[in-house]
Amino acid sequence: MPDPTAAMLVIGDEILSGRTRDSNMHHLAGELTRVGIDLQEVRVVPDRHERIRAAVTALSAGHDHLFTSGGIGPTHDDITADAVAEAMGASIGVRADARALLEAHYAKSDQVLNEARLRMARIPQGAELIDNPVSAAPGFTLGNVHVMAGVPAIFQAMVASVLPRLTGGTPVISRTLRVERPEGDVAGPLGETAAAYPDLSFGSYPFIRNGVFGTNLVVRGQDADRLAGGVAALARALPEAVEE
Amino acid sequence: MPDPTAAMLVIGDEILSGRTRDSNMHHLAGELTRVGIDLQEVRVVPDRHERIRAAVTALSAGHDHLFTSGGIGPTHDDITADAVAEAMGASIGVRADARALLEAHYAKSDQVLNEARLRMARIPQGAELIDNPVSAAPGFTLGNVHVMAGVPAIFQAMVASVLPRLTGGTPVISRTLRVERPEGDVAGPLGETAAAYPDLSFGSYPFIRNGVFGTNLVVRGQDADRLAGGVAALARALPEAVEE
Repeated sequence: MPDPTAAMLVIGDEILSGRTRDSNMHHLAGELTRVGIDLQEVRVVPDRHERIRAAVTALSAGHDHLFTSGGIGPTHDDITADAVAEAMGASIGVRADARALLEAHYAKSDQVLNEARLRMARIPQGAELIDNPVSAAPGFTLGNVHVMAGVPAIFQAMVASVLPRLTGGTPVISRTLRVERPEGDVAGPLGETAAAYPDLSFGSYPFIRNGVFGTNLVVRGQDADRLAGGVAALARALPEAVEE
Repeated sequence: MPDPTAAMLVIGDEILSGRTRDSNMHHLAGELTRVGIDLQEVRVVPDRHERIRAAVTALSAGHDHLFTSGGIGPTHDDITADAVAEAMGASIGVRADARALLEAHYAKSDQVLNEARLRMARIPQGAELIDNPVSAAPGFTLGNVHVMAGVPAIFQAMVASVLPRLTGGTPVISRTLRVERPEGDVAGPLGETAAAYPDLSFGSYPFIRNGVFGTNLVVRGQDADRLAGGVAALARALPEAVEE
């Protein structure tokens, strides 16, 4: 059975304007690889209802899972929940279970559950809540869409609580050979080895370090023995390569 | 006249697997903001011909410019040029001008222009070359698609050589007020101020620092006087806010 597939949607003007450097994509990519879910596409869109709705519609239809990041806070530009609800054909309003979570949280602090914060209890009907151990306001799973916060600490906590619910695949394992030669020198032997092992993936990632052009060769696969065979063949073709 | 719009396409399995943390998106976003080009969407896709071709077709049609990053090196997984050529209906082959650049570069080094490296001279007919001051292999502009390398140092150099060719817009300027109160406390005054200044954009970016929940409020606009008015109104509504 092929591995489950996933897409990610990052929502926020601040990423597209260059004000904020997104880190959630890199975090999610690593976690999905670890559990054997194949991340096939990421999109970044602004805080605009129609752009979010259209992206959710397209990406949730094309993948087993869609993970979103951002736009579920208390301010006027937090519109993700409504856009996801519309894309998935669900109704949305303040839900008692989410409201209770917020009430319990604010009762313990000197903050009040005002009208703005109550916005964070707007959850689509039929969605399952995702725990937020940092600031209480929950994310949610609606159909195959997992809606999470943009603040990295909260995003990471939500990913940690969602992933164990999902059926993973066979984790992809990888091994890296590093060679201090430019990519153009290794492309020939690399391509020949890749052609001989069509069930493995051979990636070539050039780098420049201390003025030296080098290449990291990453071999990926799901079977450790087969991977070992591909790595050994590549090492024979490029004797100066060293395993990272 | 509205500002020119842009999209970006990041190409590479290594980003989607979590092996590599992309930095080109953040760099391009900041540079486009500086010259008044509105980055409206970013997509990340794997090294697969059909995924690249489909994304180029969609994003180049929907925006004034499309910038791509990655997949133009000498190895078997470098397939961006061919996918872009197909998407744009152009033929592609080794071009004399690109080959001459590579010949001149390798003549100065102890490296040879082998078959793998010659792949980097495959440039669509009608495309304009983009200079690569780091390792010679050029990028190219075909129609409204600007194809650049994934290695950050080369990507940045290519962006620097492409942007002066393009017609920019009115740069968006921004000012940031920082308040050491959680987003839920400032959402009300923020939303009211935003409603009063519909020509400005008011963004709210929560942070957690040393255990304190705070919010950065970013006001953006194209007219400095109008922006000053919006910032002053926000500061009156939130007297404890300080300008960053």
